[in-house]
Amino acid sequence: NSVRYIRVTHTLRVNANLFMKKDEFCNRHIGPRDRDVITMLDTLGMKSLDELTNKAVPAKIRLNNALDMDEPVGEYDLINKITKIAEKNQIWRSYIGMGYHNCCVPHALMRNIFENPGWTTSYTPYQPEIAQGRLESFLNYQTMVSDLTCLDVSNASLLDEGTAAAEALSLCYRQNKRKKMLLSDKLHPQTISVVQTRSRSLGLETEVGNVFGFDFSNHDIAGVLFQYPDTEGNVLDFTKLVEDAHENGTLVCCATDLLSLTLLHPPSDFGVDIAIGTSQRFGVPLGYGGPHAGFFACNQSLVRLMPGRMVGVTRDAAGRDGYRLALQTREQHIRRDKATSNICTAQALLANMSAMFAVYHGPQGLKDIATRIHNLALVLNYGLQEDGNQQANKLFFDTLKVYPRIGVEEVKNRAKEKKINLRYYDDQETVGISLDETVTENDINDLFYIFGSSHRVEDLLKSPDNSRITNASICKTTFKRTSPFLTHPVFNSHHSENRIVRYMKILENKDISLVHSMIPLGSCTMKLNATTEMMPCSFKHFTDIHPFVPAEQALGYKQLFEELEKDLCAITGFDNISFQPNSGAQGEYAGLRAIQCYQEAQGDSHKTICLIPVSAHGTNPASAQMAGMKVEAVKVKQDGSIDMDDLKGKAEKFSNNLSCLMITYPSTFGVYEETIADVCDIIHKHGGQVYLDGANMNAQVGLCRPGDYGCDVSHLNLHKTFCIPHGGGGPGMGPIGVKSHLAAFLPGHPVINPLSGNQPSNGGAVSAGPYGSAAILPISWAYIKMMGARGLRKATQVAILNANYMSKVLEPFYITLFKSPTSGLCAHEFILDVREFKKTAHVEAHDIAKRLMDYGFHAPTMSWPVAGTLMIEPTESEDKQELDRFCDAMISIRQEIKDIEEGKMDIRINPLKMAPHTQEQVTSSSWERPYSREQAAFPAPFVRPEVKVWPTVARIDDIYGDKHLVCTCPPILDEYSY
Amino acid sequence: NSVRYIRVTHTLRVNANLFMKKDEFCNRHIGPRDRDVITMLDTLGMKSLDELTNKAVPAKIRLNNALDMDEPVGEYDLINKITKIAEKNQIWRSYIGMGYHNCCVPHALMRNIFENPGWTTSYTPYQPEIAQGRLESFLNYQTMVSDLTCLDVSNASLLDEGTAAAEALSLCYRQNKRKKMLLSDKLHPQTISVVQTRSRSLGLETEVGNVFGFDFSNHDIAGVLFQYPDTEGNVLDFTKLVEDAHENGTLVCCATDLLSLTLLHPPSDFGVDIAIGTSQRFGVPLGYGGPHAGFFACNQSLVRLMPGRMVGVTRDAAGRDGYRLALQTREQHIRRDKATSNICTAQALLANMSAMFAVYHGPQGLKDIATRIHNLALVLNYGLQEDGNQQANKLFFDTLKVYPRIGVEEVKNRAKEKKINLRYYDDQETVGISLDETVTENDINDLFYIFGSSHRVEDLLKSPDNSRITNASICKTTFKRTSPFLTHPVFNSHHSENRIVRYMKILENKDISLVHSMIPLGSCTMKLNATTEMMPCSFKHFTDIHPFVPAEQALGYKQLFEELEKDLCAITGFDNISFQPNSGAQGEYAGLRAIQCYQEAQGDSHKTICLIPVSAHGTNPASAQMAGMKVEAVKVKQDGSIDMDDLKGKAEKFSNNLSCLMITYPSTFGVYEETIADVCDIIHKHGGQVYLDGANMNAQVGLCRPGDYGCDVSHLNLHKTFCIPHGGGGPGMGPIGVKSHLAAFLPGHPVINPLSGNQPSNGGAVSAGPYGSAAILPISWAYIKMMGARGLRKATQVAILNANYMSKVLEPFYITLFKSPTSGLCAHEFILDVREFKKTAHVEAHDIAKRLMDYGFHAPTMSWPVAGTLMIEPTESEDKQELDRFCDAMISIRQEIKDIEEGKMDIRINPLKMAPHTQEQVTSSSWERPYSREQAAFPAPFVRPEVKVWPTVARIDDIYGDKHLVCTCPPILDEYSY
Ligand SMILES: Cc1ncc(COP(=O)(O)O)c(C=O)c1O
Ligand SMILES: Cc1ncc(COP(=O)(O)O)c(C=O)c1O
Ligand SMILES: O=C([O-])O
Repeated sequence: NSVRYIRVTHTLRVNANLFMKKDEFCNRHIGPRDRDVITMLDTLGMKSLDELTNKAVPAKIRLNNALDMDEPVGEYDLINKITKIAEKNQIWRSYIGMGYHNCCVPHALMRNIFENPGWTTSYTPYQPEIAQGRLESFLNYQTMVSDLTCLDVSNASLLDEGTAAAEALSLCYRQNKRKKMLLSDKLHPQTISVVQTRSRSLGLETEVGNVFGFDFSNHDIAGVLFQYPDTEGNVLDFTKLVEDAHENGTLVCCATDLLSLTLLHPPSDFGVDIAIGTSQRFGVPLGYGGPHAGFFACNQSLVRLMPGRMVGVTRDAAGRDGYRLALQTREQHIRRDKATSNICTAQALLANMSAMFAVYHGPQGLKDIATRIHNLALVLNYGLQEDGNQQANKLFFDTLKVYPRIGVEEVKNRAKEKKINLRYYDDQETVGISLDETVTENDINDLFYIFGSSHRVEDLLKSPDNSRITNASICKTTFKRTSPFLTHPVFNSHHSENRIVRYMKILENKDISLVHSMIPLGSCTMKLNATTEMMPCSFKHFTDIHPFVPAEQALGYKQLFEELEKDLCAITGFDNISFQPNSGAQGEYAGLRAIQCYQEAQGDSHKTICLIPVSAHGTNPASAQMAGMKVEAVKVKQDGSIDMDDLKGKAEKFSNNLSCLMITYPSTFGVYEETIADVCDIIHKHGGQVYLDGANMNAQVGLCRPGDYGCDVSHLNLHKTFCIPHGGGGPGMGPIGVKSHLAAFLPGHPVINPLSGNQPSNGGAVSAGPYGSAAILPISWAYIKMMGARGLRKATQVAILNANYMSKVLEPFYITLFKSPTSGLCAHEFILDVREFKKTAHVEAHDIAKRLMDYGFHAPTMSWPVAGTLMIEPTESEDKQELDRFCDAMISIRQEIKDIEEGKMDIRINPLKMAPHTQEQVTSSSWERPYSREQAAFPAPFVRPEVKVWPTVARIDDIYGDKHLVCTCPPILDEYSY
Repeated sequence: NSVRYIRVTHTLRVNANLFMKKDEFCNRHIGPRDRDVITMLDTLGMKSLDELTNKAVPAKIRLNNALDMDEPVGEYDLINKITKIAEKNQIWRSYIGMGYHNCCVPHALMRNIFENPGWTTSYTPYQPEIAQGRLESFLNYQTMVSDLTCLDVSNASLLDEGTAAAEALSLCYRQNKRKKMLLSDKLHPQTISVVQTRSRSLGLETEVGNVFGFDFSNHDIAGVLFQYPDTEGNVLDFTKLVEDAHENGTLVCCATDLLSLTLLHPPSDFGVDIAIGTSQRFGVPLGYGGPHAGFFACNQSLVRLMPGRMVGVTRDAAGRDGYRLALQTREQHIRRDKATSNICTAQALLANMSAMFAVYHGPQGLKDIATRIHNLALVLNYGLQEDGNQQANKLFFDTLKVYPRIGVEEVKNRAKEKKINLRYYDDQETVGISLDETVTENDINDLFYIFGSSHRVEDLLKSPDNSRITNASICKTTFKRTSPFLTHPVFNSHHSENRIVRYMKILENKDISLVHSMIPLGSCTMKLNATTEMMPCSFKHFTDIHPFVPAEQALGYKQLFEELEKDLCAITGFDNISFQPNSGAQGEYAGLRAIQCYQEAQGDSHKTICLIPVSAHGTNPASAQMAGMKVEAVKVKQDGSIDMDDLKGKAEKFSNNLSCLMITYPSTFGVYEETIADVCDIIHKHGGQVYLDGANMNAQVGLCRPGDYGCDVSHLNLHKTFCIPHGGGGPGMGPIGVKSHLAAFLPGHPVINPLSGNQPSNGGAVSAGPYGSAAILPISWAYIKMMGARGLRKATQVAILNANYMSKVLEPFYITLFKSPTSGLCAHEFILDVREFKKTAHVEAHDIAKRLMDYGFHAPTMSWPVAGTLMIEPTESEDKQELDRFCDAMISIRQEIKDIEEGKMDIRINPLKMAPHTQEQVTSSSWERPYSREQAAFPAPFVRPEVKVWPTVARIDDIYGDKHLVCTCPPILDEYSY
């Protein structure tokens, strides 16, 4: 029967539990009530969830015992538990710098964006008509980056500064095909490491050193990267260097700090081609290293090579301005291994927070913040020097490098006493101090104390010759910025709290998110992101920690990582986890790197072939290419399953050089292939490793384990299966699990060693942060702890039930493209084939997608993995009623198509082709369509005015926008807009 | 010049500040930027804010020095500061009971209601068409209370259990005019105290004692009140008692506990007429006593006597169901001193949280919670008795009364060791233990330890005779509830988190709140409720404390109260503050009580006359009546000012018996009367006291002080001037300030003495909590700390500027009814006279109010204090652009009126009379109106589809609803509704 799964052996315990039955989180996370589960099983002719999943999951790989995990914790207790863990982290003041600065996160933004499911639970804005809010915010972000760097175009975020640097140099290589990179030795160490990792896998050479006076005349340098202000705080002039580089065909990249650019002239003044960095200190917490948005800006001439997503202005079907993702043809989902990068999930939410930080403060506010920091640095510098300390930086913005009079050891002791972290250079002689927005006079006084000075800020300011303090100011040099920035009204209107809150609310309310309705995006697992899971992300013991603090200050994080690693190993059957990759795609890259390094260590550097089924997600080939592998496609059969003959043939053919296979399970077609274990065997037999794309882990948890059936390494999209909200396109986390033989090749880090047991790493860094986006790991930790083994298993079962139920309900109306030939079932998602309607009614998949908006729904995944289809993944968190509602919408649309097929409705002007419909259209005096206003906007009984979510633009014209590329805020015509 | 106000004497300090300029909260709180201030002053022909306010505020009362306060604190530092204060509170486990129980506040509700400005910043739903969301939630609340108590009707909340009890007995008195009340001695002590205070002022007699066997045959008892389960935990049968009472014409009131009623048969089974209590333990934090919702339910026959607001179902102009406040003619704003009560601000937000708690858990979930608590109580009871402790309650739900074997002192010591609070009875022999939703097995084990028992829950449950444990269950008695409850679909549909979040979002998005646009309600001061102010309300060190913990556990609260008292005294010129009153109206009552007790102590008990200008708010006469005073009206002149001759005459006439004058300043007409100091003099000369209604304090802070110009006592609506959000109709706080001679007569409390310096109080309690709604005081504290003296003063100045600017802009179109005859200025609000349009265009104030919704605005205060007018209060938080937008709407409406006047538009079917317009109407195929759909719904350029907030019902029919009273959830017709 259907409740079999809650039976456990220890009867007495059950009695006790019943006697004191507590609210179980599992029942809040899973949508369908038990009565609905029975009804839905009935529809499928099944008696229990176990019957369903025993049929669906091949016996060969099925897990026969319960996952080894703790008993589930209730929501209330969970918060107590994680509070205790969090409090093991110690919050010291950190003036370490190195790309991470504490800042004052405006509380209005924290509460109304970061803690607001209306902002956090939306997906990447692939459906622009119901995403104009965050698209506008991305455009603000791009405008901000573009204005501050003075470069033509910016993307809508990358994963962090380190990967942005790697992307920049990869771009140089793609552009001029040269194989050498020049890196300044005054870059942040993690930037150098991430770039070197990337270069190594691509077979490129990097030279790290003093970039000044470098001789470019060999014409072999693809790109040079330096930092301004540099990692030690120096502000230097790169004009001559850039001239030399350009004269010799080398592209120039500059890592920079947006806040400093409010005072300093922009890097464009040196003539750089690309600027990169992090926008963390614009209103995003430290979070022990992430998530934060990396930025990337470049000249117009490089735009088509630019990595990552970019928002642009275009027009809609009604001829009005609208926003959408621009130039998508650069991206991996279209160009696959020829893509500009493998970036898919980025840092949307954090980019939006940073953009809103700029909107909130405006140009003058930002300048005030920067000035205050700079002035405090000047005071500190003056006082320290007066007291006999040497300071290395002639010009600086916020960072000093000091030779302490009293010696480094004494400084360390005093800093400890004051609970202040500084940067201690390897030379044992110098100490770095990087000031930030939160610094007060009192903090400076403490710093004076630490360096053995008795100065106090008040006194220095009072002293008659205090003008000498400001003599060293960058604002008195040619570095002073004179060009305006953030002149657009959006940055000059929302400075009171009422105003910023209303602006955020207007944007929020334009977008569909999980607070409105299900988002059935196949392969994206848009499940519930529960409040309890999200709460710890705001705990100051998680947010206010610099990633490079001494390990003993981060014991809370350590415990969290260890517990999560243990649980994820139990779930996957792997032996070790690396939390460094910031996204699924980065996980792929890191996993392939591990394989590569392992094979190198085995003396198998020649193994470079990566087999990838043609049905794979675009990030797979893109990541393989990034890892320097050679992609060979494996065919799939008509029914979507892998072509075993082709696989065997290819494995044979490339046997000598076979590095690995990348495979998704259940397949991207939503089917549990019976052959998966055999596939792994074949690869292993030919000396290859198996990489599992873990995007579909939501169909496996508790039912089967990749580590058991032959996979060597896999990423886990924590932002899918493990409840990190999608944030409108990030943050995500793509940790990788490996079998023990690969453990030594997991990502390392030049500052903090992330490997457990402090073993040395053989792999370079793949992210700037040692543990990636550490600050969102509590979400997945909490999910697992609250669900427990039974809950997780049931969730997977219900995810499968939901998909099969919908497929069944839609069966009379739409063809589900692939099902298991043995069980007749799909996994947790399924593909509707709508290609025939093109012939019968001139209707295409995207017409259905747009029409669904009129019904209040976000479209399923469109045209992937099969062109002209829709892939639906309901997840376990949606209940029967919501599934029925969505099915009703699809059935109603089928009738609308039929009306066209039967000639009852015009083939050109019909509700599908004209979708989505806006308020402006249906409330207009003129309405000359062959269907009614009501049919346009309220096509089903559940689309009631009081719950209707309106698309705010009509159908977006992608092509127009790509032809007339505008990627910064367009001028305002309407006086009331801001 | 206009920035004069920031000049301070200590030049050096200013320099230092400029050198390190920090983000100032004041600039976030105040809407207009400095450049706008200059423009707006220009419109008024003024050069500076000081010029403006020097003109506006009479010289005689003007404050000439700065308020004595600390320097302002930034938002970031504020949170550090209040965190430190909060952490001085110690969070012990409290099993004290007495009407306050810890509970598991569902995190999804906490984040999406309590911490969501979309819910917290709306006003009382006087404009139902843009308030259907919270009206629906109130109806859920009423249905919940009505279902659980099994009484016909419930109101939408009262302030707390104590005042609900007082209201219940007042109702009895109003109904049968008898002057004696019978109170059970097993009521919570604070309930008895609040009732006694109220009775005393009304000249009623109370008898407290054992109610069983009481002889009602004297026919002199108005009402009897008992508690079920009683304060000690006993569950007793009142059937016979109720019969006796009824036979003798006595009404019967029962205080009860909603959670217990999921297991116990409802009080209606005894035949009671009224049930009251608190819904705190339904998902609302303890908060050191409040805010929580008190509930009140009664039989249909008493509905017209019921106090407080009540929501009912009616229909709209399109014939559809809609909700609105029902039977408002009972209330003080219409019936004045004949009203059913003085309740104005209630506990809307908390009622909605409790209602949503029931929606989230559903009947079975609530029963599970109750069962678990009851079962744990049974285990505890069994174990304690087995170990030789006597327990007094034969039947109980969650509360035991124990005679400890080891003696009370030893229990106290052990409890201290475990950090557990229990109820120690005065008899020194018994200890009360009240279990709650948060209790775990481990807690019970700790309780066993405290009582010297070595039992453990696990072992007791395991023991073979464990059925003996449940033998004492109330569920095995005739008390067991058999009637169903919460059967409506709304309580049976939203149990997954996705579902509840979406439901809350649907409701939220139906309502206009401050996140959408200004809410210019005159006399309500809908200013910014800043996030930073709200954050501490979620700190567990504020939320998780029982109001009756020993003082040393609440040192954080103590510091907060002391600091806030000091600052409020500095602002008002008073000497002491009482934080007990939960609303402005309760403050009035408490203030009048203080006057009354003071006069009694002077031997002046005969002083009963209370002079009140006819322009006063309805709560003034209603409160005076509650205080047992005789209201005498004072005339006001044509120009709105107090008729000094009439005042003098009345003061003279009633000189012997003059208790006091109640007066609002600036007047309810929005004018600073020059005579205010004279008024105070006159009253004092005739031996009376001056009560200032502090609702308009936002026009005075930093400019003049009631304590300086002659007031003796005043309430402060912290939910107006001091930033507590209105919560859709509460919570509020109405602390009172007094001159020192009244200090000894401030409210006391039977459990915790709230008076500073522990001096004994001569006044009884006016609220259940010793410090009222303590948990929201951090909001006002934070506001004051962040604004500082200069910021507060500037806020007042800008509030006055904003009002005068709007009045000026609207001058060519509308008449501002009252201005100061000397300055020609209004204060912080102004009244538009629209009465002429009734004649010229058949248009009334409410037509304009409804039409404003089509423009996206909440209406100003309607027909108060002058019938047929609109009173506008912009507050300082709205910026020039928002004021202009509102003025544009008003100007556009004036043109629409003109069109009717000039016959260009139909007098019956026009945009005003038909307002507001719904989506359903303007998207309907049929449209047969003499104006266009666009004019209906998008009447101004700033009403753009992408920002439009739609009314979800057409104009609500009040009269229909009052004729067909339905105050619980109506049946669902639409399968998709839930
Ligand atoms: C099958 C598959 N693989 C990989 C990815 C890439 O993951 P991410 O977006 O986290 O980089 C996705 C993303 O949707 C996916 O569906
Ligand atoms: C002038 C005046 N007095 C008293 C009150 C009553 O205050 P409360 O609603 O807090 O009881 C109000 C409320 O709007 C008011 O405007
Ligand atoms: O985001 C995806 O490409 O699925």
